[in-house]
Amino acid sequence: MKYPKPLLTLIDELSRLPSVGKKTAERYAIHIFQKFSKEECEKLAQAVVDVKSIGVCKSCGNICEGEICSICSDPERDKNVVMVVETIKDLFVMENINEYRGIYHVLGGAISFAKGIGIDDLNISSLIEKVKNNEVNEIILATNATLEGETTARYIKALLSDYDINITRIAHGLPVGGDLAYADEMTILKALEGRKKYE
Amino acid sequence: MKYPKPLLTLIDELSRLPSVGKKTAERYAIHIFQKFSKEECEKLAQAVVDVKSIGVCKSCGNICEGEICSICSDPERDKNVVMVVETIKDLFVMENINEYRGIYHVLGGAISFAKGIGIDDLNISSLIEKVKNNEVNEIILATNATLEGETTARYIKALLSDYDINITRIAHGLPVGGDLAYADEMTILKALEGRKKYE
Repeated sequence: MKYPKPLLTLIDELSRLPSVGKKTAERYAIHIFQKFSKEECEKLAQAVVDVKSIGVCKSCGNICEGEICSICSDPERDKNVVMVVETIKDLFVMENINEYRGIYHVLGGAISFAKGIGIDDLNISSLIEKVKNNEVNEIILATNATLEGETTARYIKALLSDYDINITRIAHGLPVGGDLAYADEMTILKALEGRKKYE
Repeated sequence: MKYPKPLLTLIDELSRLPSVGKKTAERYAIHIFQKFSKEECEKLAQAVVDVKSIGVCKSCGNICEGEICSICSDPERDKNVVMVVETIKDLFVMENINEYRGIYHVLGGAISFAKGIGIDDLNISSLIEKVKNNEVNEIILATNATLEGETTARYIKALLSDYDINITRIAHGLPVGGDLAYADEMTILKALEGRKKYE
């Protein structure tokens, strides 16, 4: 016996979500079928469609409801400092600490040979454009401390080596409250490499 | 800075899926927004709505495309033996081993004081009805070996104690290929309780 066609279709569609396999998609689909009312299904469906009404900032790749996002169009933000992040989520995490006053550049991922994500899949060219137009003093590379993030950071650094700008990388080391005994080797290595004069 | 309204709505809707918290819903929503094309969003939305076109078998609670499911309407199945399962998924798991030839009764869950699921929330009355009408010889209680599943099994047994039918419970014990050293206490206890003459 097989699931009815509409359930199979929903399982298929849901299994395209990140880290959702057949089993999880099946659980979600059965839950939607059994526990959601018709109205709730329609609300979810509408939300899925509506999300595509959100636009992408032409300047930085952040999400926005117009053409330029609220950060890029904010006169208070320092347009000379650009923080390069992998994803919109990273941007929001950084924004939430309410400390950074420059603008952003969202790559939309990181170079990954394993996942087949190359340079052309990332929003890099418009960053180079900004630098070329002498709009930038400092580029803060805030890609993740993963193989992909490091590769991407190194690649951008190489691309921008001919321009007279500061290229910095956010610090990596032990997290605040972290215990040396429980840290992984790479973090300890990064913490050691990045040591500073204690004042 | 906050996410745009449509994204917040989608996160809200997705976080109603089982075991999906805000963080996971956020990941799914951003993925849908960034990686799904407009057509893909529409396909997913359509699938969510279409799933409600599936009906529920009036006789056993299984999903079906008509009024009575393919199992209940199959003349080859033994209508005198009814296996009581918690969910449709359990039914499908049992069906996939291609061994059981009776029919099913899907409760739609199990009694849970913690989750506030009572007797009235489950599809029990129609089971009693079937027994009353002398349609059943054996009831196989195949609810899970959890506190909720056991409670439900005991409750159904008590309800049916006045009727002259066989009430059986599926066996619980060590899974095939399981190692005694890695089994939990309850499983070992069940395995010991359920021991049989070795022939």
